[in-house]
Amino acid sequence: MSSTSRIHLNVFVPTTGHHEASWLHPGTRPERLTDIAYYRETAAIAERGRFDSLFLADQLAIGRSVKHVAQGKLEPLTLLSALAGATERIGLIATASTTYSEPYNLARQFASLDHISGGRAGWNIVTSWSAEAAGNFGLAQRNSHADRYRRATEYVEVVRKLWDSWEDDARRHDRTSGIYADTDRIHAIDHQGEAFRVRGPLDLPRPPQGHPVLVQAGSSDEGRAFAARYAEAIFTAQQELADAQAFYADVKSRAAGFGRDPDGIKILPGLSPILGSTEAEARRNEEELNDLTIPAVGLKHLSQRFDGFDFTVFPLDEPIPVEAFPRPATVQGAQSRSQVILDIVARERPTLRGLLRRLAGGRGHKVLAGTPAAIADHIQLWVEQRAADGFNIMPATVPAGLADFVDEVVPILRRRGLFRTEYAGRTLREHYGLVRPASRYARSA
Amino acid sequence: MSSTSRIHLNVFVPTTGHHEASWLHPGTRPERLTDIAYYRETAAIAERGRFDSLFLADQLAIGRSVKHVAQGKLEPLTLLSALAGATERIGLIATASTTYSEPYNLARQFASLDHISGGRAGWNIVTSWSAEAAGNFGLAQRNSHADRYRRATEYVEVVRKLWDSWEDDARRHDRTSGIYADTDRIHAIDHQGEAFRVRGPLDLPRPPQGHPVLVQAGSSDEGRAFAARYAEAIFTAQQELADAQAFYADVKSRAAGFGRDPDGIKILPGLSPILGSTEAEARRNEEELNDLTIPAVGLKHLSQRFDGFDFTVFPLDEPIPVEAFPRPATVQGAQSRSQVILDIVARERPTLRGLLRRLAGGRGHKVLAGTPAAIADHIQLWVEQRAADGFNIMPATVPAGLADFVDEVVPILRRRGLFRTEYAGRTLREHYGLVRPASRYARSA
Ligand SMILES: Cc1cc2nc3c(=O)[nH]c(=O)nc-3n(C[C@H](O)[C@H](O)[C@H](O)COP(=O)(O)O)c2cc1C
Ligand SMILES: Cc1cc2nc3c(=O)[nH]c(=O)nc-3n(C[C@H](O)[C@H](O)[C@H](O)COP(=O)(O)O)c2cc1C
Repeated sequence: MSSTSRIHLNVFVPTTGHHEASWLHPGTRPERLTDIAYYRETAAIAERGRFDSLFLADQLAIGRSVKHVAQGKLEPLTLLSALAGATERIGLIATASTTYSEPYNLARQFASLDHISGGRAGWNIVTSWSAEAAGNFGLAQRNSHADRYRRATEYVEVVRKLWDSWEDDARRHDRTSGIYADTDRIHAIDHQGEAFRVRGPLDLPRPPQGHPVLVQAGSSDEGRAFAARYAEAIFTAQQELADAQAFYADVKSRAAGFGRDPDGIKILPGLSPILGSTEAEARRNEEELNDLTIPAVGLKHLSQRFDGFDFTVFPLDEPIPVEAFPRPATVQGAQSRSQVILDIVARERPTLRGLLRRLAGGRGHKVLAGTPAAIADHIQLWVEQRAADGFNIMPATVPAGLADFVDEVVPILRRRGLFRTEYAGRTLREHYGLVRPASRYARSA
Repeated sequence: MSSTSRIHLNVFVPTTGHHEASWLHPGTRPERLTDIAYYRETAAIAERGRFDSLFLADQLAIGRSVKHVAQGKLEPLTLLSALAGATERIGLIATASTTYSEPYNLARQFASLDHISGGRAGWNIVTSWSAEAAGNFGLAQRNSHADRYRRATEYVEVVRKLWDSWEDDARRHDRTSGIYADTDRIHAIDHQGEAFRVRGPLDLPRPPQGHPVLVQAGSSDEGRAFAARYAEAIFTAQQELADAQAFYADVKSRAAGFGRDPDGIKILPGLSPILGSTEAEARRNEEELNDLTIPAVGLKHLSQRFDGFDFTVFPLDEPIPVEAFPRPATVQGAQSRSQVILDIVARERPTLRGLLRRLAGGRGHKVLAGTPAAIADHIQLWVEQRAADGFNIMPATVPAGLADFVDEVVPILRRRGLFRTEYAGRTLREHYGLVRPASRYARSA
């Protein structure tokens, strides 16, 4: 596709918003989390903005703070299959774990979603950092970070082989000869590995995109190595331009090291915009949300990020010492995110209460309160400075915050020639400007 | 619901039709198996006929005859999620295996489908008889029939606990008090069993139906015991009225033995109607389909039914001796179906070719060629004679054969006061006249 957009925008669809207290805000709809119409309306706003994709996270467990935090949304693969029929062009990215499922099951559900949506499916590959999830799948405790990534690597290999197992032109449905499919073009994969033995072929034809787009969000050393090898889009949490540039350069060069075109990986840092018609108004809007937070909720989230470490022993209104935190390298959950948090503490030296407010908006992702032009400036700067290929937009509130972004920021990006005014392609690969992979089993002509 | 229909109709949605050679017939669309619009159109015909439900089977592997048999349709849970938005009232039943998946994953996908469809989800619980499926999930061979049913029993217990884990009124989303959910009404299930350890709760609220409707199709002794305990609708393959009556009486009395209301299980034998305006024309239509069959395909299917036994050693045009078949009790795949086939052989003494043609239509299910009135008579007789509560309609061709049934047979059933003219309820439970279960965790008031 020549006419792909200069920048790419994904919307990370939350429950009621990415701000922890969003459900208490009048711009959200906490009573609609199991109502399909709510997601249809949200998707319609994003599609009206011509976003490349929308994305659903997945933890495989409820959080510990269901008393005070809106949760219990629909399951991603079923929800996106339902949204496929309610949308026309926007990409549909579901999170699914490699730790708690079988590759054959997942390969065919994503292949099916890709068929249902006419080539708009993407898979956010996660290894599930949540300790709660482990308890729902027979494990007394989470597997180690390294074990999870080792399994993930083999898992993705199996899934890609399965997607390739029917060549694109395997079906002939030729009534004259009685040949439904050309069995020379449907292949057993006979995978025999450490974690999986899978015979194949898949039980449905190759997805329209060849492979649904592979997305990843690991940022630890293992996570980056994995992403550099497989990912076609990367979600990442970055606070500072310099850190984001370093991450960008590192991942792109690692990808080149695997023989890949660095343009074949789109890097999308998280950005949670809070808009106002003046900077002062934007700040007030941010404070208004932060004032709704409940410290007990923030404390639990922070504790989860550090493998259950207890922060309640520290006074809320005193600066919290950097040395008090467990070292990120020992964290078995999401290593890179604990580092982001630690960097904030070292840089800003907040009180514990201040840190909780600071994290309530983006949980380590960049929160930016400002005018539409200031948000657009930030986006443009990061893209021009090779810190990003676009952004993972994380509205503080949904639908209100998403609609504001679409109506106020997107038009500025368009006027600056940065973002598409119309979809040029039909598939998610086309939106992101990604090559469609050939089947590994296809004979070269 | 007082106004439930006297009989119940499910349509078993196939690839191109239930006749093995259906894809070679002009009434089918073999090139559309991955086209969501094809399924939307099929569902619309069934909904126009006011069917209780539509149903998708699932084998977790392609059959061995992909060269000559249309296959490779969309995955059931994603497909039904997509169809939920394209339909209004019809129930949506997906097959899913208890042998090759984790109960937590399945529980939430069905719960999600139930939310998406407004209470129209059903689960056809299977243990996967296919030997090919085992190879896609790391097993050199299938688990034994008894082991599969033992695991299925524990699996269903876990899933039902998970569906109950949020009580119906657990969510409060009360902005004034800051209470999103009442944590006294969200329960860990702490299941510790032989095959599964699952902590819970589920990560989404209770399905609108409480539990999606449980459907089952096992007919062996173990299968019946399982169905009598859990199933709310049963698919079964019966050729003869007396056999169907015996099955009906047996399952209903077994259910009573579990303390259940026998009316809480709807028994739906398979019926593959082939219509004609005269009986002679119907027979010609059947012969036309049978003439399209390829003996090699039928031989492979027959062999699969008997754990790979090789039937090619017998001459095609001689009667095949009953003694030649393996005993059903030793069959590790679908025991009951092999018995149905053996009964046909004993009763009709066909040549091998004749048997293959005989099975090409319904694979052991009843195929009935006749006028619309004759089909309606059969349905009425079996229901009045307590052999069925309705039927699992298996059109020989789709869409043609399904549309014929809806346009020609359904009106007769209506005129006779047997079948609904309009949906009275909104949920699948209401269509079938089934009680909505309370959560096991709900405090009695
Ligand atoms: C935007 C974004 C979304 C994520 N969504 C999920 C998710 O839905 N489920 C999950 O288990 N992890 C999710 N993660 C966590 C990552 O998969 C990964 O565990 C985390 O970024 C830490 O990476 P690391 O384990 O390589 O340190 C997400 C991360 C980011 C940045
Ligand atoms: C109408 C009908 C549909 C069925 N669909 C499936 C299916 O989709 N997948 C599957 O593995 N088995 C399916 N079965 C097989 C049953 O689950 C069961 O294995 C079979 O009826 C034999 O029962 P038994 O194992 O108790 O003898 C189906 C059976 C019937 C009658």
